[in-house]
Amino acid sequence: MHNISELQVIVEEAIKQLRYPSKPDKLYAPISYIMALGGKRIRPVLVLMAAELFDEDLKEPLHAAMAIETFHNFTLIHDDIMDNAPLRRGKITVHEKWGVNNAILSGDVMMVEANKQLSNLDISVLKRALFTFNSTAQGVCQGQQLDMEFENRDDVTLEEYIEMIRLKTAVLIGGALKLGAEVANASVEDAENLYSFGENLGIAFQLQDDILDVYASPEKFGKQIGGDIISNKKTWLMLQAIQEAESEEILTMLQVSEGDEALLKVKTVTEIYNKYKIKELAETQVKIYIDKAMQALDNIKVSDERKVYLRALTQKLMVRDN
Amino acid sequence: MHNISELQVIVEEAIKQLRYPSKPDKLYAPISYIMALGGKRIRPVLVLMAAELFDEDLKEPLHAAMAIETFHNFTLIHDDIMDNAPLRRGKITVHEKWGVNNAILSGDVMMVEANKQLSNLDISVLKRALFTFNSTAQGVCQGQQLDMEFENRDDVTLEEYIEMIRLKTAVLIGGALKLGAEVANASVEDAENLYSFGENLGIAFQLQDDILDVYASPEKFGKQIGGDIISNKKTWLMLQAIQEAESEEILTMLQVSEGDEALLKVKTVTEIYNKYKIKELAETQVKIYIDKAMQALDNIKVSDERKVYLRALTQKLMVRDN
Repeated sequence: MHNISELQVIVEEAIKQLRYPSKPDKLYAPISYIMALGGKRIRPVLVLMAAELFDEDLKEPLHAAMAIETFHNFTLIHDDIMDNAPLRRGKITVHEKWGVNNAILSGDVMMVEANKQLSNLDISVLKRALFTFNSTAQGVCQGQQLDMEFENRDDVTLEEYIEMIRLKTAVLIGGALKLGAEVANASVEDAENLYSFGENLGIAFQLQDDILDVYASPEKFGKQIGGDIISNKKTWLMLQAIQEAESEEILTMLQVSEGDEALLKVKTVTEIYNKYKIKELAETQVKIYIDKAMQALDNIKVSDERKVYLRALTQKLMVRDN
Repeated sequence: MHNISELQVIVEEAIKQLRYPSKPDKLYAPISYIMALGGKRIRPVLVLMAAELFDEDLKEPLHAAMAIETFHNFTLIHDDIMDNAPLRRGKITVHEKWGVNNAILSGDVMMVEANKQLSNLDISVLKRALFTFNSTAQGVCQGQQLDMEFENRDDVTLEEYIEMIRLKTAVLIGGALKLGAEVANASVEDAENLYSFGENLGIAFQLQDDILDVYASPEKFGKQIGGDIISNKKTWLMLQAIQEAESEEILTMLQVSEGDEALLKVKTVTEIYNKYKIKELAETQVKIYIDKAMQALDNIKVSDERKVYLRALTQKLMVRDN
């Protein structure tokens, strides 16, 4: 078994070994570009970590890990087009560098590459893996659609928000773990428990992100505190506050602000959050999902020693500054 | 065995039976919309026709046929975005109706649906089918990329043009046939011969399209004669003519023209084509590819009676008015 850092090295090495066709250059250059931008490689690491619960041979799981990481990066290219984002991990986005049409098509061919990775799997696990992979991909697309629709809606409920982050973020965490279990020939029950662990962890992780956006320590956060408040993003905190607050406070929260006013808005909205103990309410939610995740992890029928790295990763994801 | 019209009915019926998730509605409505726009369903028919050479049970081949048709329609949605096309089969395009972001995402989830169709296949054929499907999808993306790049290049060669139409059009014809053969447990050699038949037929078909654009009978063609000439499209005819013509003739061919001038341009360029016998040269090329296709069909180790519908389809595709 390998710890998180060791698995990150294994994943990074496997990514470097990926080969794409050399032509047309403009179709494949964006793939090499985005795959090299880095990141923590959490999703492929989860594939391998889940597999190692059941079998330490990483040959098959690595195909699945590369499929998941390729798929994830494909969604980043297309999401960045839809969000009109200029930067990704501090670097210029694919559609800004190569144009929108090129970015659409390079994304498309990445989805093909992801499926090609899967087609390397042994036939004994292929059907199950393909089903899980595509169900996961379907969920992620559904989540992105909901996220886009929520931007133009004023009546999003807390339940709808949780459903959106479940699809957009948590399904891929759960799917990566389930896929890893499946390619390592885990039982259906263990694979489902890993999915449930991941899905609940994913929701908790995203809620934690919403909290950090407002309450992180500015020195450690690495980006603008209150970015979600400034951009009027309907996070769990915002939706909960709208439910609790007076109507003039709600107007303040929804108001568009720029420059110095934006900073003032962050301050004012944070005070409203504090008044209604929104942070504490959100933390209660995080705890509920973490407890569910831990219950699912407990239910997996392998020894506790084998679960040590998944527990360590949970800890690392949940106790963080950014 | 079924003839072409019977297979078209079977395909149409299977498409009607396809079910997508009900939510988010805006993600799936474009899929139902484009799949219902019709067309001749050539590609899924080819899957079934190839399969019936070897086995008349269409249960498995229908999954593959739906995967191919879903993939093809996904490429139409994304190609229409890239080409900024307002209409598809006489109806408003998906990106015009639902917006570009929605069209990108609905296309993405169609690729997922296509792979889900494949994951229904029996494990005995799944790995082979998945490999062929994704190699095909890869080729189509490469072809679209080359097509986009050629628009901004003045030095495209005839060989490059053939390579572009091979990837953009012919690989999918060949891939559909190969996939059909594979899910019907054909030998590797027969599957390859079907691929070669389809690839050569696809190139011939596209060259025939280029000829029809200029030389079709106006009453039967159903669209503007000389559309490629007006839009300065670098078809095989145009590229061949540029190779043969005098420099002032080349200027005429590349000149941008609108309204009545455009009609005059069609007339003048057609005269240049006639002067250099471009139509005859193109027809010679068509014949070369058809001969190759027929050779590959001959090489397939099933009785001649079983090949009758593939020959009929070839005839139908090559002797046409539009």
